[in-house]
Amino acid sequence: MTTEQVTVNDVGPRDGLQSQSKILTVDERLQLVEALIAAGLRHIEVGAFVSPKAVPAMAGTAGVLSALAKKDRSADAIHTVLVPNLRGYELARAAGANSVCMVVYGSDAMAQANVRMSRRGAESAATEILQLARRDGVRVTLTIAVAFECPFEGAVDPQRVCELGGRLLELGTDELCLADTIGAAHPLQVRSLTGSLVGSYGASRLSCHFHDTRALGLANVFAALESGIRKFDASIAGLGGCPFAPGASGNVATEDVVMMLEQMGFETGIDLGPLMKAAELAQKLTGTASGGRASAWLLQNA
Amino acid sequence: MTTEQVTVNDVGPRDGLQSQSKILTVDERLQLVEALIAAGLRHIEVGAFVSPKAVPAMAGTAGVLSALAKKDRSADAIHTVLVPNLRGYELARAAGANSVCMVVYGSDAMAQANVRMSRRGAESAATEILQLARRDGVRVTLTIAVAFECPFEGAVDPQRVCELGGRLLELGTDELCLADTIGAAHPLQVRSLTGSLVGSYGASRLSCHFHDTRALGLANVFAALESGIRKFDASIAGLGGCPFAPGASGNVATEDVVMMLEQMGFETGIDLGPLMKAAELAQKLTGTASGGRASAWLLQNA
Repeated sequence: MTTEQVTVNDVGPRDGLQSQSKILTVDERLQLVEALIAAGLRHIEVGAFVSPKAVPAMAGTAGVLSALAKKDRSADAIHTVLVPNLRGYELARAAGANSVCMVVYGSDAMAQANVRMSRRGAESAATEILQLARRDGVRVTLTIAVAFECPFEGAVDPQRVCELGGRLLELGTDELCLADTIGAAHPLQVRSLTGSLVGSYGASRLSCHFHDTRALGLANVFAALESGIRKFDASIAGLGGCPFAPGASGNVATEDVVMMLEQMGFETGIDLGPLMKAAELAQKLTGTASGGRASAWLLQNA
Repeated sequence: MTTEQVTVNDVGPRDGLQSQSKILTVDERLQLVEALIAAGLRHIEVGAFVSPKAVPAMAGTAGVLSALAKKDRSADAIHTVLVPNLRGYELARAAGANSVCMVVYGSDAMAQANVRMSRRGAESAATEILQLARRDGVRVTLTIAVAFECPFEGAVDPQRVCELGGRLLELGTDELCLADTIGAAHPLQVRSLTGSLVGSYGASRLSCHFHDTRALGLANVFAALESGIRKFDASIAGLGGCPFAPGASGNVATEDVVMMLEQMGFETGIDLGPLMKAAELAQKLTGTASGGRASAWLLQNA
């Protein structure tokens, strides 16, 4: 047993909502973020500065940020917004964002499908913004999408991901997130890749992002924990899926991850009772969130 | 990656069916066993010699065994029956069983609830039958129920379980199965307990049995694998659990375990295509099996 802290970053209000057919209002999105804050979540991905035509669910993210700022909600929390490019970064800055997330890619095919660039091109674009952000004092998370397997190219060479991750860490990213975007990774792969990166760079700036497509989300979280990873993305009620990644189902549910971590003796600072209220709200607002895989147990016991 | 073999023992036709409200005919139970055999399962728990009044779903197990024997289905397979006591053992022998499973307990309260004995009393009864079985050339699995947590007593002292397991292994049981009967164990507990026993006795006679109540089934399988455990109970379509709690999880689903093992490069000898047919049959016959947690993915990909 351990009393180490583990951070959970809820990506439901961004990664989760962006793939829903039902588009929530800014007020509904705020309700969801507030419910997560009430449950003790300090790290939340609250929106994205992407084209409102391409991703209408993320329109109005500036409104989410300003409402949170008015309530002084961001003072001691990390509320991150996704920015796909320089234009998005500028919009995020104008809206007062102090933490941004950018995506790089483990495969060329996925980079092409998402941003019509090669993976090297996407890396260059992200590192350019990283340097701006460092100058601006903005916190940066760089997420390596399809870090394990690509729906178009199949298995992704772990050496390639290690080298990409190493370059981004050396450029000073605050956080490097290894994302199993389509939920295809298995625990031995996770342990191996995270073990390599932790061995070279330590765990303090590393995080992992798993999807539960093959029900391996929690097993993969455990494998990464064993390598020393102490931060995980998760999505309230398992909200998610990826509109550009065929076969991806929801993110691993925040309530499942928190339950496992707390049961193992890690401190998350998150309270499962209010968290299940947030899960209920996510399900009510979207009409589609599946809920965590341990919902039946949690609803009786949280 | 590894090419080691891992054995999966399907307990659906016994542990799964005994808790269903719908009672299957002997012929239906045979259909399910045959579907598992067709998928490549060599280890199957095919029934129990328990009171047909107490557990009507297991009445007729002698008929299941004799039908399998007529078809020469047991020649190269291990088809196990549960026996609760000496009377059950004698009935099993009379029906031609050559592999039996008996239950011992990690807690007194669970032993009392199940067999109205202390855990020491249940251990004595089981070891008496173990000695008979060794004389008779009958294979024996001893399962430690509530090896991690008891619904009445809470956490079970791992030292107690290690000592109990050690005694049973030293008495010559062919297999010792550590059962998380209520699905309460977490991966660190599993790694610790299995690690202790593997360290003292090796892994060749050890197996684990997990329930998916808190969605930790696959994470616990992975943790046990890391300790060297190479045999797991699982239940086709996740059969099991409480018939009075709709949606409550049963045993970890065979198809989920096989998928994870095969994906990690272990050899199970089980073919996921026919296995999903067996899962479909289990769902059709019982009307209640939830299916594995990775069903959506498996149905598209197996």
